[in-house]
Amino acid sequence: MPLITFEGLDASGKSTQLQLLQLYLAQLGYEVVCTRESGGTGLGVEIRQLVQERHDLIIHPLSEALLYAADRAQHVSELMRPALQRGAYVLCDRYIDSSLAFQGVSLPLAVIREINALATENLAADLTFLCDLGVSTARERLQQRETAPDRIELRDNSYHEQVRRIYLEIADSDPGRICVLDTSASVESVAEIVKNRVKTRFGIDDGNPIYQE
Amino acid sequence: MPLITFEGLDASGKSTQLQLLQLYLAQLGYEVVCTRESGGTGLGVEIRQLVQERHDLIIHPLSEALLYAADRAQHVSELMRPALQRGAYVLCDRYIDSSLAFQGVSLPLAVIREINALATENLAADLTFLCDLGVSTARERLQQRETAPDRIELRDNSYHEQVRRIYLEIADSDPGRICVLDTSASVESVAEIVKNRVKTRFGIDDGNPIYQE
Repeated sequence: MPLITFEGLDASGKSTQLQLLQLYLAQLGYEVVCTRESGGTGLGVEIRQLVQERHDLIIHPLSEALLYAADRAQHVSELMRPALQRGAYVLCDRYIDSSLAFQGVSLPLAVIREINALATENLAADLTFLCDLGVSTARERLQQRETAPDRIELRDNSYHEQVRRIYLEIADSDPGRICVLDTSASVESVAEIVKNRVKTRFGIDDGNPIYQE
Repeated sequence: MPLITFEGLDASGKSTQLQLLQLYLAQLGYEVVCTRESGGTGLGVEIRQLVQERHDLIIHPLSEALLYAADRAQHVSELMRPALQRGAYVLCDRYIDSSLAFQGVSLPLAVIREINALATENLAADLTFLCDLGVSTARERLQQRETAPDRIELRDNSYHEQVRRIYLEIADSDPGRICVLDTSASVESVAEIVKNRVKTRFGIDDGNPIYQE
């Protein structure tokens, strides 16, 4: 019952790496559940829309943190915990570290941690990949996408610099769980690091040796 | 900067008593801000609609508690705290005790207390009136209203019996703050008790003596 999360700025390569890991684990015969936050459940989609798309609403940082926590509570109870309990690998695009990094720009990390411990009933990730990329590169990649930017994407570069800094601080303080990936490297080379780390961490034998990172 | 809250089942007489207290205080020249939860802000209206009107969504009790807390965080920061800071009387129709009583049917009270302490940054009511009425009487009064019942009103009598029991337990444990009103009595006689309690608690001199309850 491993929970593996992918973190980082938008367009930092999270989803690509998540999909490649899904393929790898599925080929080995494991049940893999891929999901995302925010918006991993019916309620979550509504909450996500409220927080990210309704530019007319005033939302206090504490309210924003509680709304994302409500989404997370639903996601954990409705989807993630049942999947973990039946032994699936759950791969989640964003989890608690996203709240720490993004809401941590405006709120104390201790408050965000407390809210999320309550919301998830202390469900922590077993392994986290932080896709680290310079803000300007991530922003350029984001602009090439055809979707309209949401409330958070619209925030300026200095906001995203702070988010990146908090992410790296969290990773520094928890190196056993969080593996920082330099996603300016090629997709294939990063995927190799991810695969090897998962093999080591969960004792998977795919018939191939583990290469040094 | 007094915060006075009104609690109880739907149709237990909260709003009527709140309005009568508002008139009384306004006539004495005080600034009075009347508000309500859920739905006291623009964001709150959206959250209220999500929780109470969207019968198609699955909502876990913990998510429900966090959604109401998000509404409350917004309400406190946007409306209540500024009003209290400029010295107004804030009269609020439902506050934290509502979450304890209604969500307490499904969740431990300690969890709800923690969530709400975080959401309100520990803003507690100075005085609370619990409008207590038998469930069957409250339900009959409710049915006479012309609005369609929401998700919570649709729950059965045994649910509302539990809510009432939790309300009374909270009142028992905090008699200095919570005044229980028997709202099966006449509106005028209950209003007199409310007025006298507010006069005593906040040292108001309206030129009339305080009568025994």
